[in-house]
Amino acid sequence: MAAASTASRLSPPSRSHVRPRSLRPPLRRSRFSPVRAAKLEAVLSIGSHLIPHPRKAASGGEDAFFANSDDSGVFAIADGVSGWAQKDVNPALFSRELMRNSSSFLKDEEVNGDPQILLMKAHAATSSIRSATVIIAVLEKTGTLKIASVGDCGLKVIRKGQVMFSICPQEHYFDCPYQISSEAAGQTYQDALVCSVNLMDGDMIVSGSDGLFDNIFDQEIISIISESSGVNEAAKALAELARKHSVDVTFDSPYSMEARSRNFDVPWWKKLLGAKLIGGKMDDITVVVAQVKTVAVLEDEGGDIEEQKGNEQSIAVAVASAEQNEE
Amino acid sequence: MAAASTASRLSPPSRSHVRPRSLRPPLRRSRFSPVRAAKLEAVLSIGSHLIPHPRKAASGGEDAFFANSDDSGVFAIADGVSGWAQKDVNPALFSRELMRNSSSFLKDEEVNGDPQILLMKAHAATSSIRSATVIIAVLEKTGTLKIASVGDCGLKVIRKGQVMFSICPQEHYFDCPYQISSEAAGQTYQDALVCSVNLMDGDMIVSGSDGLFDNIFDQEIISIISESSGVNEAAKALAELARKHSVDVTFDSPYSMEARSRNFDVPWWKKLLGAKLIGGKMDDITVVVAQVKTVAVLEDEGGDIEEQKGNEQSIAVAVASAEQNEE
Repeated sequence: MAAASTASRLSPPSRSHVRPRSLRPPLRRSRFSPVRAAKLEAVLSIGSHLIPHPRKAASGGEDAFFANSDDSGVFAIADGVSGWAQKDVNPALFSRELMRNSSSFLKDEEVNGDPQILLMKAHAATSSIRSATVIIAVLEKTGTLKIASVGDCGLKVIRKGQVMFSICPQEHYFDCPYQISSEAAGQTYQDALVCSVNLMDGDMIVSGSDGLFDNIFDQEIISIISESSGVNEAAKALAELARKHSVDVTFDSPYSMEARSRNFDVPWWKKLLGAKLIGGKMDDITVVVAQVKTVAVLEDEGGDIEEQKGNEQSIAVAVASAEQNEE
Repeated sequence: MAAASTASRLSPPSRSHVRPRSLRPPLRRSRFSPVRAAKLEAVLSIGSHLIPHPRKAASGGEDAFFANSDDSGVFAIADGVSGWAQKDVNPALFSRELMRNSSSFLKDEEVNGDPQILLMKAHAATSSIRSATVIIAVLEKTGTLKIASVGDCGLKVIRKGQVMFSICPQEHYFDCPYQISSEAAGQTYQDALVCSVNLMDGDMIVSGSDGLFDNIFDQEIISIISESSGVNEAAKALAELARKHSVDVTFDSPYSMEARSRNFDVPWWKKLLGAKLIGGKMDDITVVVAQVKTVAVLEDEGGDIEEQKGNEQSIAVAVASAEQNEE
């Protein structure tokens, strides 16, 4: 066996790439205002795609989400949890109500752009029973993305072809994530992972329910993001690849690799025949892709927005949750 | 082959565990003050351990760090980069100067608890040549840990036996991380990953140079943290296990697994004989372990600190960088 221990770090390469523009902290003054004062603000272009679980396609599945590019941008995803005792209640009712409430409380004064408070209020206002994993992400004008997450929805930030930020799932045990619930035994906003990351012009955010991240690897996400011409196209391509893997019983998915690493595998006598636990994970698949753009706002003109460079317009996509499927 | 796609999510278990105390946002008022007003503040108990690369033991290696539990708590790690053209300059000079400067600027008004500004000032004040990866983490009294990182030092937060937060490494290509440099071609504070995470009473932070995370798996970190009786003991145990793995040419380390996934492997004719790229990675190993504690501060008494529960004292550990080895 060869030892890997001899590799040494190499000298830093010369920097031929353009340094991405950081929104903070040096940018306290305008860099674009020969005449009028202007400041830089971050906004999100948001695309999305939802593919329900094959057996739940008729009812639209149990995921729900919303996205809104008013102000700087906000999106949220909720994944209704199956497996409850009350089999007659559609888990989608809870996840959809949670998303509807989150959207309603967006402008609430007490929320004030804090995703954890938004989650608290949205949860408190639910009347459906059941539970859901949930992630809420709010972009501040400064470029800081604030995140509150309960359970195993995912969020990754891609910068210059690398995953440079990723949130960890929370779970009670394998395949049983933390969940916001109608029951006292569930988690609340106080159990959320609350974090933030400073974003730069051009950063791509990929967020989704576990149906996405259980069925697709980081390198596949990076490839699709680099090849897509827009956020909607990227979201659709990611969802479709995850869907393809999810129904492929021969695909060694992130989900099956994780299951084996937790000792969920086939019995020893199947192993003798060369079998192993493998395959994608069929699930609802929700994908949100958001691109960070920097715009110059003229300070004297009450928030007029000028696109900073090029003539591509900042796309403000408002995506409703899958309400059309609600029963 | 068995398909993994049939596993369904299970019902949420009843919560027999105690919910960890969140420092925010509900705690706007004291919960401990029948008589006098008090507020909760977060502080870090910090332990550390550094084991130099076996061939660099005489000079103390090229990692440097500092930790300070004044105020709420701050720590930083820098890993001097080998492989430069100027072979006659000790890479440790740059990393140690960067850490010395970071410590000096801690109370700087402009820094004001912002690790990215601290990095900017510490870097600007260096006079040594060479480069280093670096991470700086500052805890706010509210419980928010603010992080700035350039390169592949790591930081994980462990809560209730799970890694619930982890930062991603940044690199130009395999084994060539982003680095703060004396040369214009290197990275600056503007290239840093800047993020934050809200911590809770009892959370454990494990941070280190890549010599730690290249040689130890998350499950090993979680085991050691759960078995250790204090932060210094945990830091020492983590460093010693990473050191043991780093010199073990038969250990399939995170580093060798990553190398193989990037197609750095032995030639095909060695593969035919069953050989594969394997082994630990010999390197300087720096470990910082910090535990978050919540203390009640009496508002009327100018910052007196009362331990909130139990009688274990909050340990304020001040750790110098490895200056004793400086040439």
